Amino acid sequence: MADTIARDETHRLIASDKVEGTNVYNAENEKLGSIRNVMIDKRSGQAEHAVLEFGGLFGLGSDHYPIPWDMLTYDTDKSGYIVNLTKEQVEGAPHYAAGSAPDYDDAYGRGVYSHYGLTYPLVR
Amino acid sequence: MADTIARDETHRLIASDKVEGTNVYNAENEKLGSIRNVMIDKRSGQAEHAVLEFGGLFGLGSDHYPIPWDMLTYDTDKSGYIVNLTKEQVEGAPHYAAGSAPDYDDAYGRGVYSHYGLTYPLVR
Repeated sequence: MADTIARDETHRLIASDKVEGTNVYNAENEKLGSIRNVMIDKRSGQAEHAVLEFGGLFGLGSDHYPIPWDMLTYDTDKSGYIVNLTKEQVEGAPHYAAGSAPDYDDAYGRGVYSHYGLTYPLVR
Repeated sequence: MADTIARDETHRLIASDKVEGTNVYNAENEKLGSIRNVMIDKRSGQAEHAVLEFGGLFGLGSDHYPIPWDMLTYDTDKSGYIVNLTKEQVEGAPHYAAGSAPDYDDAYGRGVYSHYGLTYPLVR
């Protein structure tokens, strides 16, 4: 399976099912969690958020944290994404319980991007 | 599970793991297959292709067909994507065997888009 997924990856593009489940670390090399899925604009195909599973114990009780796609950098050495956030910053970031996803409408997306000091990409 | 996934969907955005596995039909209401994954530009987050699993029997021996994202339309009645291609057109389209993915570099992407008469979105 890992081998299959590796072959699904490419120079410039990455397969969505390879992103899902990938570990996320911060600059202090702490593991923050893993990517649950990617939220994609239906019409334009633009990925807006990678959703981080963070907190809980052994995957139980973890919450979902939408992270603007641009904030994630892939680190080949770690085989994971790096995001420049402390654990405390993640704890204070927009999130929701698994199974209680909000409407990812413009207002919610704008709120997430605003929290991280980013301009919301309404139109690309 | 279906309920959970439904909650992951939103007005304007869709979760990558909801796209994966979704059936694909053509305008003649024939089922062409299902979506294997979405190929996303690592840097920009732009989804370029949805990869269609087509052919084979009971999922065995099916090949993978990258379809430009813009060609897919979601049909809520069918709970699936519609793509305006006959089975014969799909058979003649760029594809590869499962586990033998090509490098999705610019040349390959341009070839796929060109096959479908679309301008390749090198920069968004």
